[in-house]
Amino acid sequence: MEDPHAFDRDPANGEASDIYGEDGAIRSSFLHTIGEILETEDADRLKEEIADLHQSEVGDLLEALQPDQRGHLVRLSGADFDFTALTEVDDTIRAEIVESLPNEQIAQAVQELDSDDAVYILEDLNAEDQEEILAQLPFPERIRLRRSLDYPEETAGRRMQTEFVAVPAFWSVGQTIDYLRDDQNLPERFSQIFVVDPTFKLVGAVDLDQVLRSKRGVRIEEVMHEMRHALPATMDQEEAAREFEQYDLLSAAVVDENERLVGVLTIDDVVDVIQQEAEEDLLRMGGVGDEELSDSVRVTSRLRVPWLLVNLVTAFVAASVISLFEATIEQIVALAVLMPIVAGMGGNAGSQTMTVTVRALATRDLDIYNAGRIIRREMGVGIINGVLFAVLIGAVAGFWFEDTDIGGVIAAAMIINMFAAALAGILIPLLLDRVGADPAVSSSVFVTAVTDIVGFFSFLGIATWWFALS
Amino acid sequence: MEDPHAFDRDPANGEASDIYGEDGAIRSSFLHTIGEILETEDADRLKEEIADLHQSEVGDLLEALQPDQRGHLVRLSGADFDFTALTEVDDTIRAEIVESLPNEQIAQAVQELDSDDAVYILEDLNAEDQEEILAQLPFPERIRLRRSLDYPEETAGRRMQTEFVAVPAFWSVGQTIDYLRDDQNLPERFSQIFVVDPTFKLVGAVDLDQVLRSKRGVRIEEVMHEMRHALPATMDQEEAAREFEQYDLLSAAVVDENERLVGVLTIDDVVDVIQQEAEEDLLRMGGVGDEELSDSVRVTSRLRVPWLLVNLVTAFVAASVISLFEATIEQIVALAVLMPIVAGMGGNAGSQTMTVTVRALATRDLDIYNAGRIIRREMGVGIINGVLFAVLIGAVAGFWFEDTDIGGVIAAAMIINMFAAALAGILIPLLLDRVGADPAVSSSVFVTAVTDIVGFFSFLGIATWWFALS
Repeated sequence: MEDPHAFDRDPANGEASDIYGEDGAIRSSFLHTIGEILETEDADRLKEEIADLHQSEVGDLLEALQPDQRGHLVRLSGADFDFTALTEVDDTIRAEIVESLPNEQIAQAVQELDSDDAVYILEDLNAEDQEEILAQLPFPERIRLRRSLDYPEETAGRRMQTEFVAVPAFWSVGQTIDYLRDDQNLPERFSQIFVVDPTFKLVGAVDLDQVLRSKRGVRIEEVMHEMRHALPATMDQEEAAREFEQYDLLSAAVVDENERLVGVLTIDDVVDVIQQEAEEDLLRMGGVGDEELSDSVRVTSRLRVPWLLVNLVTAFVAASVISLFEATIEQIVALAVLMPIVAGMGGNAGSQTMTVTVRALATRDLDIYNAGRIIRREMGVGIINGVLFAVLIGAVAGFWFEDTDIGGVIAAAMIINMFAAALAGILIPLLLDRVGADPAVSSSVFVTAVTDIVGFFSFLGIATWWFALS
Repeated sequence: MEDPHAFDRDPANGEASDIYGEDGAIRSSFLHTIGEILETEDADRLKEEIADLHQSEVGDLLEALQPDQRGHLVRLSGADFDFTALTEVDDTIRAEIVESLPNEQIAQAVQELDSDDAVYILEDLNAEDQEEILAQLPFPERIRLRRSLDYPEETAGRRMQTEFVAVPAFWSVGQTIDYLRDDQNLPERFSQIFVVDPTFKLVGAVDLDQVLRSKRGVRIEEVMHEMRHALPATMDQEEAAREFEQYDLLSAAVVDENERLVGVLTIDDVVDVIQQEAEEDLLRMGGVGDEELSDSVRVTSRLRVPWLLVNLVTAFVAASVISLFEATIEQIVALAVLMPIVAGMGGNAGSQTMTVTVRALATRDLDIYNAGRIIRREMGVGIINGVLFAVLIGAVAGFWFEDTDIGGVIAAAMIINMFAAALAGILIPLLLDRVGADPAVSSSVFVTAVTDIVGFFSFLGIATWWFALS
């Protein structure tokens, strides 16, 4: 757990740090100062400037600097640099900085860190560098970090902190307080005390406020509570985050396969996971995967191609639907002018429904109990908005081309496509979710395919049929 | 703050509650049981079934029940019902339930709640009911709740808890512990102790682990730290959430305009704000505003119309671009078949860039220092992917219509439109953000308008020029 209540450099003002300008970005004057310091290699002045910054502010500073200045700053700071700041920057930037540093400096720095932060930095390195750094650490720390690194990526075991306070159930509150006053090896911060049996099996936990409220003679087992939310170390971090959200946890014990306490997961790490998860959904729905702002042109371009390719296939399918009606279009060119309106409006309505559905699936608000009601609601919305926009578009189109028949045809096609959009917008994500695919990734391609195909087919089809009749 | 480390009903298993099935939804057998209990009005059995559930589980249960069963359950539970559960359900459902309850029951229940939860429930009521309920509360609670309710919606003052522990700086650690042991009016949970002067001005805070580590004789002022992150009560809740994220806070003092301590904001409330904010961005980008899953057909339909209307206008503008080239289409109908591909692929590429930009703006990762680099990167990606898909689409189109000229025309149009998409995808959100509009809401309309118009104009324009020449 990182410092939860940061210190103030200037007790008088109580304001946030003044390295940020009005717009929330780091002031250019400050960047300029740091640039000068780096050029003159003035380690003392550098120390002076960044010593009082919070780790996340140092992180922001690193991101705002030029790529070659970043490693330079860390090297010039030497032993004074708090590596926690590296946990606050983009993955790509962190990897760049860490790779530019000598393994000795990393090994030295990692010893000062909480284990969760140390793992965060070590896991990006290749196996060889990792081994070299671990070999330079004292035995107990090496063992602890290796244990965390042995758990799969993105699990509770990877994100946990292995520093915690644990006492036996038969201790008294007084004994516990005396132990806390004397022990030099306590974690920097902690918000609960775990209770374990002699084999280190977890039996419960006590919150600190509970200890402070109780008389010295009270036994720990009288004030402790059972741990309902102990997390298996192999639990996926998103699952763990959901436990935190559902039960408003501040921290949770992490246990191994024998129910033995191995670490603690804290809310500040979970907040990052929650953020990440929400971000992933948004980016996936926009057709971009796990790209980062610091990625290069080449990487970004390659990451975006697959989605464009899939869309290309559906675009050609939609085009082939249009080509069925070439003869009709040749006779009435107005149809070519108006057909993108039918397809586009359907696409927009479909993406509205789809967005709501994907989000509700992600938050688990949509389940078998309300799915029927939501499907009926979306169909209702599809019909109402379909009729509304049919009338509107029909009137404008009829007026534009001075042809009430065209107005009628486009109105009929609009109703059909808005209804298809509603159905596709809800059923496609539900179906993808049911078969185990991620609805955030793939829904939009299919929904657009449906609204394009139905849009073109209904509009051009009705027109062909109608004008052939009259 | 709510119970941060929940108790277990069944110490032996340590598993999450078994009211949920495999799919994460509440078991239908459990819903059935509750339904039966409600029909037979069996208050004792109801108490037995839900007494051990966590408040969020009761919340999930309420959401899964039929609308008329919800208020019924709360009324049947009577004084046993923990109103905290109501803070866990959808706004619309909460309002429905609360409106169906007698004001006396609400007044009774609200006294049991932490002030932040009480405010959560009261703020939904109309002014009249609010006054009636407040009038039934004891004086100190009435004053406290009214103070919270007087702050504007969605501010730190609205979300804060007014129960906290504050001591003077000259107290010793021993005195503080004795006070905590004796005082009956402590908040249910707390994780830090605030330090105030005689006028209740905030001078600092001590974390509980700091108190526990220190000898009894140590003075509070020696172990306290200055409060760097005291939040003004009128601060927007999103601003407050950003402070929590940036500085990894667990709780923060809320102060009034005279720097006097009025409450504490805790991370569990902030997690909800973070979630909400991420959700809002996602929904806005999908063209849906603040709608909820529990909204009716009528409400949903009305909420979605404005966005569809704006899109309709741009769709007609795009159609009018097509109509400029009616003569060309009449001669070469293949153009009508292919033109949606150019517009659609541009739209997809534009929405990829736009998604990344909107997200980076929301997380403040995009600022004046890297904007130039990101714009250049997106232009690079636009050119590379533009050329790539130009070749691909040009080849397929040329082969399809057995006409290399058409292949060449569509390839040229693709390069132009993919580049326009990249520019629009990054510049439009940046511009909207600069003029103070929410880029999540309005970017997608403008980006699609650009890619449609540029797509149709470039493709049909180049075709007209080329085929007129040859």
